[in-house]
Amino acid sequence: MDKILRIDMGAAGGPSMKEEPVGAYAGLGGRAMTSAIVSKEVPPLCHPLGAENKLVFAPGLLSGSAAVISGRLSVGCKSPLTGTIKEANSGGQAAIAISRYGYAAIVLEGKPATNDLYVIHFGKDGVKIKSDKSLKMLPNYDLVDKMKAAYGEKIACISIGPAGEMRMGAASIAVTDMETRPSRHAGRGGVGAVMGSKGVKAIVLDMTDLKMRQPKDVEKFREANKKFTEGLKSHPVTGQALPAYGTNVLTNILNEAGGYPTKNFSGGVFDGSAKISGETIADLETKRGGLATHGCHTGCVIQCSGTYVDKNGKFVSKQPEYETVWAHGGHCGISDPDVIAKLDFMDDNYGLDTIEMGVTIGVAMEAGIIKFGDAEGAIRLVDEVGKGTPLGRILGSGAEVTGKAFGVERVPVVKGQAMPAYDPRAVQGIGVTYATSTMGADHTAGYAVATNILKVGGFVDPLKPDGQIELSRNLQIATAAVDSTGMCLFIAFAVLDQPETFQALIDMLNAFYGLSLTADDVAALGKQVLSMERDFNARAGFTAKHDRLPRYFLNEKLAPHNVIFDVKDSDLDQVFNW
Amino acid sequence: MDKILRIDMGAAGGPSMKEEPVGAYAGLGGRAMTSAIVSKEVPPLCHPLGAENKLVFAPGLLSGSAAVISGRLSVGCKSPLTGTIKEANSGGQAAIAISRYGYAAIVLEGKPATNDLYVIHFGKDGVKIKSDKSLKMLPNYDLVDKMKAAYGEKIACISIGPAGEMRMGAASIAVTDMETRPSRHAGRGGVGAVMGSKGVKAIVLDMTDLKMRQPKDVEKFREANKKFTEGLKSHPVTGQALPAYGTNVLTNILNEAGGYPTKNFSGGVFDGSAKISGETIADLETKRGGLATHGCHTGCVIQCSGTYVDKNGKFVSKQPEYETVWAHGGHCGISDPDVIAKLDFMDDNYGLDTIEMGVTIGVAMEAGIIKFGDAEGAIRLVDEVGKGTPLGRILGSGAEVTGKAFGVERVPVVKGQAMPAYDPRAVQGIGVTYATSTMGADHTAGYAVATNILKVGGFVDPLKPDGQIELSRNLQIATAAVDSTGMCLFIAFAVLDQPETFQALIDMLNAFYGLSLTADDVAALGKQVLSMERDFNARAGFTAKHDRLPRYFLNEKLAPHNVIFDVKDSDLDQVFNW
Repeated sequence: MDKILRIDMGAAGGPSMKEEPVGAYAGLGGRAMTSAIVSKEVPPLCHPLGAENKLVFAPGLLSGSAAVISGRLSVGCKSPLTGTIKEANSGGQAAIAISRYGYAAIVLEGKPATNDLYVIHFGKDGVKIKSDKSLKMLPNYDLVDKMKAAYGEKIACISIGPAGEMRMGAASIAVTDMETRPSRHAGRGGVGAVMGSKGVKAIVLDMTDLKMRQPKDVEKFREANKKFTEGLKSHPVTGQALPAYGTNVLTNILNEAGGYPTKNFSGGVFDGSAKISGETIADLETKRGGLATHGCHTGCVIQCSGTYVDKNGKFVSKQPEYETVWAHGGHCGISDPDVIAKLDFMDDNYGLDTIEMGVTIGVAMEAGIIKFGDAEGAIRLVDEVGKGTPLGRILGSGAEVTGKAFGVERVPVVKGQAMPAYDPRAVQGIGVTYATSTMGADHTAGYAVATNILKVGGFVDPLKPDGQIELSRNLQIATAAVDSTGMCLFIAFAVLDQPETFQALIDMLNAFYGLSLTADDVAALGKQVLSMERDFNARAGFTAKHDRLPRYFLNEKLAPHNVIFDVKDSDLDQVFNW
Repeated sequence: MDKILRIDMGAAGGPSMKEEPVGAYAGLGGRAMTSAIVSKEVPPLCHPLGAENKLVFAPGLLSGSAAVISGRLSVGCKSPLTGTIKEANSGGQAAIAISRYGYAAIVLEGKPATNDLYVIHFGKDGVKIKSDKSLKMLPNYDLVDKMKAAYGEKIACISIGPAGEMRMGAASIAVTDMETRPSRHAGRGGVGAVMGSKGVKAIVLDMTDLKMRQPKDVEKFREANKKFTEGLKSHPVTGQALPAYGTNVLTNILNEAGGYPTKNFSGGVFDGSAKISGETIADLETKRGGLATHGCHTGCVIQCSGTYVDKNGKFVSKQPEYETVWAHGGHCGISDPDVIAKLDFMDDNYGLDTIEMGVTIGVAMEAGIIKFGDAEGAIRLVDEVGKGTPLGRILGSGAEVTGKAFGVERVPVVKGQAMPAYDPRAVQGIGVTYATSTMGADHTAGYAVATNILKVGGFVDPLKPDGQIELSRNLQIATAAVDSTGMCLFIAFAVLDQPETFQALIDMLNAFYGLSLTADDVAALGKQVLSMERDFNARAGFTAKHDRLPRYFLNEKLAPHNVIFDVKDSDLDQVFNW
């Protein structure tokens, strides 16, 4: 991981490649790498779909090593959805493959003059770029089948579906999992549209004979990795709740807390929650012969995923995440798990962010396009997106554009990105993160739900403004650091509660790279990443005025607690004042 | 004009009215009034379609008096298209009527909880508000017919068409002309959508027995008005070119200057210009029995409008403005005047800004929805907007949303508003105005074309950056002042070239109000208006980074002069540094 591969998709005569030493970006991984490159090299006022934008893929610092659960891939660019800098990350096998090919980053630059569509293949004979118009508008699952036929079964694939080719704001980038299914996604911010604008349909990485990356100090590394694993397995969230029920364990928890946004954020409790809870779906999966406990990439020890099958035991989709179940479920008044799993598959196949799509359909329901609870209607709408009908073009552009097209006032977005599955009025800490994150509304950027609701890392009353700024600040700093390691963010539950597990993570990094980092250095890295991102955003025209929730969260009370978002603007402005 | 009428459309039990003295807003008219109220009373971060926004109608300081050409009506709000403060102004009879009813402003506030649609009627018995669902989705011309049947022939009508009801970003507010046709529009920024969000379909003003507003010093006023009129009549632009050919006299001029944006700003010369020039269309109108010279409101002495009729002498539309002929014509590669006149009528009837619509269709052409030059296709697209089909919803939301929905990079907007009919690369002064105006891309905000191309008020080379900042600054200041008087902006040609005509305008104001204003006071008023607007925008999150053209104007050379927009960012930042 000491080199960067730059591919100029707009070079005269067709794409050209250049390999260079990691240079000034040495020591950076994942989000730190993508945000450094974007912040330094992309003009902040450029058009996100133009030649000046760059799409950066970066494995984490520990990706491809024996470190458990270290296979996250960061994807960075200027976002067509938010206009901000963007890092969306994904599980799956690709980060492992890229890191083992020795690349700290792959950077797609420029823009083809023609409408050719390219596959970039990494194999024993090096990197080859091939134009293939026959792939046009292929959904991700069909595309991966074609790639397997062409390049063998043992591949990792990064691809876009029709949504990315159509350059939609909700377009994701798919990454194949251990079963070589395109079920993991760098979902948010329209990164798939940027890949589409570069004319790249797929990056295929042959995984045969790839060697594990070796630490400098093998023994210390092994020991730290073991302690780290034990920490994850001993924590109730990462050792029990997530393996048993996946992220969807949160449906019942958020519903009971009155913070589960229903019917386009008009209430905090969903009466259909029992039908789509993690417990119900895990039970259903097990009974039908699916899997309730499964990992998304080699080396995962949490296993929060699963396999959702139909009544006949046939594969429908990977186990839908909590945010997906919420977005397509409670947010739209839909409580049929089979419908939600089908929508999850459709999103993955067309290459769409499930959060943005679900929220957008809720906004379309508020506009009266279909009624709340109309499951068949929701399926039809996602199908229109995948087919690129005019209505699909609106919805595929995300919640904000849909709100504009239909003149809707209640559109739950920050910086143009849809809010995830936690109402900021009943979980005020996550409201601070939504408002101030460098990425637009994003729960993963500083998951205050952990402390507000799950009582991980202490407890801060979710219904009151007190303590939320500090909570969100610390989590945003920690997250930016974790996102740079390649570690799955879910390690944070154990790391927040167990100082020895946090220390084991630092020990792993030190043993791998021969460093002597301390906890302070990790925090400093997080701050450095956020500062780069904030600097980019400021140069792109973002100010404190953009670090705000839509005003209806300040004016409309949320049942059952009858609360508004009560954190003062002047306090929001202190989040990055560390 | 010493009172303000506030109508709370969201009051419990239905709309309620409150008349109050003009108070702190005394001495303000037109844009100064609308921008003062919006800047002071509207929360800058509110949703433009929400209850917190206000829609302000204000006649100018001299409207309703004997002052010639003083009938402009200012309409202000936070814009759903740009997110900035907005003042769009219109000719027609309404400003005269409002001022003679004694109102310095009518302010629509709140938002109805139901989807009722209201008519506000001003008559001898006072102001009445009536709900009338039968008006839903009526186009402007049909609506005005109904209003005439209900309230008599002698009315002035302010209304929205289906576009406003659908809350589209391109929705205009129509104002009836001397023939009681809804042919004049406060076009820009989606002000019609705000009127739609307030549930107001029409404001109807009975004009029978309305008394002319009287000056304090009748004799001095009469004398100044006479001098002012003579000045307008003696200037070649206002005395000859505009009366003879209307604003469309500019087609040949801009085309010859290489600054006529063709096919979505991909070139500066249109090969079909001769077919749609002002000279050609005036000739056609005269031959067919239409009118090539006509005014839009009582008291106009420039008479830049006309009546466009078909081969059988039947009314098609008012004479389309230059910007309309360009937007629906050269910008889209269309050169059939009958098609352009038909599109002009359709826009007026559905209640759409012709500039935003024409530019948007050009963007849709770039996206491949229809081909450049497809006249029938363009008619079909505007029809889809009026009918609110999904494709129509996209297009009716304006060029920026259309660009997002179809993943187009080359979208000629600033702050979300489409650029008018002058390429900023070949007319660099207007580029400075587009970039820095408080309103988004708006030629009227500081019409540097006058000095760059028409050599009015001196000459500044249009192809070079030198002198453009000062030119745009001075014009933006002067325009903000003129927009406050109720005077048509076209007086500026004579006022810029003839010191005595400028003095006559000041003398009129002084004689009317018993003041002793100087030229410096007028400039101070313009600065005050701009400062209020800039302050609102800053609080809404706008920064210097938003005072920029899309980057392709800096990267793509425009033929035939092969120029880019060459004004430095650091110079743009000096426009308001007076």
